[in-house]
Amino acid sequence: MRPDDLTIRPLAQDDEHDWRRLWTAYLDFYKTRVPEEVYRTTFARLLSGDPWEFNGLVAEQGGKLVGLAHYLFHRTCWKLENVCYLQDLFCDPERRGRGIGRSLIEAVYAEADKHGAPGVWWLTQEHNYMGRMLYDKVGVKTPFIRYSRHE
Amino acid sequence: MRPDDLTIRPLAQDDEHDWRRLWTAYLDFYKTRVPEEVYRTTFARLLSGDPWEFNGLVAEQGGKLVGLAHYLFHRTCWKLENVCYLQDLFCDPERRGRGIGRSLIEAVYAEADKHGAPGVWWLTQEHNYMGRMLYDKVGVKTPFIRYSRHE
Amino acid sequence: MRPDDLTIRPLAQDDEHDWRRLWTAYLDFYKTRVPEEVYRTTFARLLSGDPWEFNGLVAEQGGKLVGLAHYLFHRTCWKLENVCYLQDLFCDPERRGRGIGRSLIEAVYAEADKHGAPGVWWLTQEHNYMGRMLYDKVGVKTPFIRYSRHE
Amino acid sequence: MRPDDLTIRPLAQDDEHDWRRLWTAYLDFYKTRVPEEVYRTTFARLLSGDPWEFNGLVAEQGGKLVGLAHYLFHRTCWKLENVCYLQDLFCDPERRGRGIGRSLIEAVYAEADKHGAPGVWWLTQEHNYMGRMLYDKVGVKTPFIRYSRHE
Repeated sequence: MRPDDLTIRPLAQDDEHDWRRLWTAYLDFYKTRVPEEVYRTTFARLLSGDPWEFNGLVAEQGGKLVGLAHYLFHRTCWKLENVCYLQDLFCDPERRGRGIGRSLIEAVYAEADKHGAPGVWWLTQEHNYMGRMLYDKVGVKTPFIRYSRHE
Repeated sequence: MRPDDLTIRPLAQDDEHDWRRLWTAYLDFYKTRVPEEVYRTTFARLLSGDPWEFNGLVAEQGGKLVGLAHYLFHRTCWKLENVCYLQDLFCDPERRGRGIGRSLIEAVYAEADKHGAPGVWWLTQEHNYMGRMLYDKVGVKTPFIRYSRHE
Repeated sequence: MRPDDLTIRPLAQDDEHDWRRLWTAYLDFYKTRVPEEVYRTTFARLLSGDPWEFNGLVAEQGGKLVGLAHYLFHRTCWKLENVCYLQDLFCDPERRGRGIGRSLIEAVYAEADKHGAPGVWWLTQEHNYMGRMLYDKVGVKTPFIRYSRHE
Repeated sequence: MRPDDLTIRPLAQDDEHDWRRLWTAYLDFYKTRVPEEVYRTTFARLLSGDPWEFNGLVAEQGGKLVGLAHYLFHRTCWKLENVCYLQDLFCDPERRGRGIGRSLIEAVYAEADKHGAPGVWWLTQEHNYMGRMLYDKVGVKTPFIRYSRHE
């Protein structure tokens, strides 16, 4: 159940400052950083409205941004309709356990339905226990694991 | 090392018959089927040349199609350049162990380099032992596992 | 750090009532039950002092049993000394996060050292997130997974 | 089906030379070594007939030892009867795929039945694909993973 004072809405131009703060905290979780140019480009792409670009949702509570989600519609060979890839999901650690992450995922599900692309998937590290406690409730673990080219 | 008589080349209009045979065998491996409309649409998308559609490579040996790969370039929030998602990879089971799968993956790597999107990733089932024997050689297992929305 | 008012001590004859309560709650966690004869036999074995039987430790707080650990020394082909298998570990769910589980594991480590069998291992379900948060701190995940005969 | 010329029998005193060769190859697989004293002690324990020591089975083909299995009966808190832990299983790599590993496991199952301890379990590395292809046929993967004390 979404908390009363929580709003999930599309990312907007004015959110840039807060969005940078939240996304940096998210990247910290993965012990990574991105250069300034990636912040600038990704923010612009999120707001572009282009159907092949990532979209952004933010969670607002008490006039403050407390969470974000970045999702992309992309082709799949197995279906006519697109599927939705949820790449980034973040919730202010001080507000964990209050339904923000779940509300963001459910809002992505609603967007996916609206776009006729009900399939939604995401990746998480096997040892992301806090995340998986939520994911087991709102989704289902598949037997698929990710490989990548050596970098 | 690519076998001498093996050619990897882009999927072409004339391959439809053989492509259907190989892709059906691939879908059988995953114990799934897709309707005729998906065959038709996916084949057309693979040949469309649209940068947001899947691309196809096929392996040819002795005048016969013996393998295929479907890959997609898509955005990532973490980088300026796109990344390459290898969704489908298949090699005729009677010709396993002769370098066809590896040659297809390496050809996808080359395409990714050519498109300025060197990052390549794919998903496989944890228990796909035959596949993973190859993937451990040409790539690296990550700690990421896939979740999806309940269907 | 062990909480001030927490005592870890060997299971004793007088603990039977409380031990049954805690072990039942533990078995509930694994959605299993055992017949009365197993309660009786296991409790007797835990107190037998026989070197090939399981040993029991309990956690006591405020005059109440709040946790238990069952561990066994057994041979290994790879070493001269025995190793220690921690089969059952349980902490009253209402007192989670206060160091009881960790104190029990550390007490098992100390017993293992005392017996000249410093190697200690245990199994846990991949999705036991709460347990694994603790285990990642006091031990290390290995790449080993458990197979068993069909039952 | 056990190959015609394959015999599975208990390890015997005269097998020491061949047993050392096979066990060394097995330990090589795990990139480990054990000192001479462990070879001597483990071999003696395997032949001791003591119910709390490991037992050995060997596979013989054409007058040659081609495989081994080391298994232990031990207590479990959850049952009256013991369970059987299969620690070491090895088959000469040049004879893989001919039913030697499977015959050894089935012989361990038969020993477990004979001892009234039908439950048999073993551990394997998640990436032991060759082993797991066999284990998925003769047994079942459980969700349990192994943790151990830092060494």
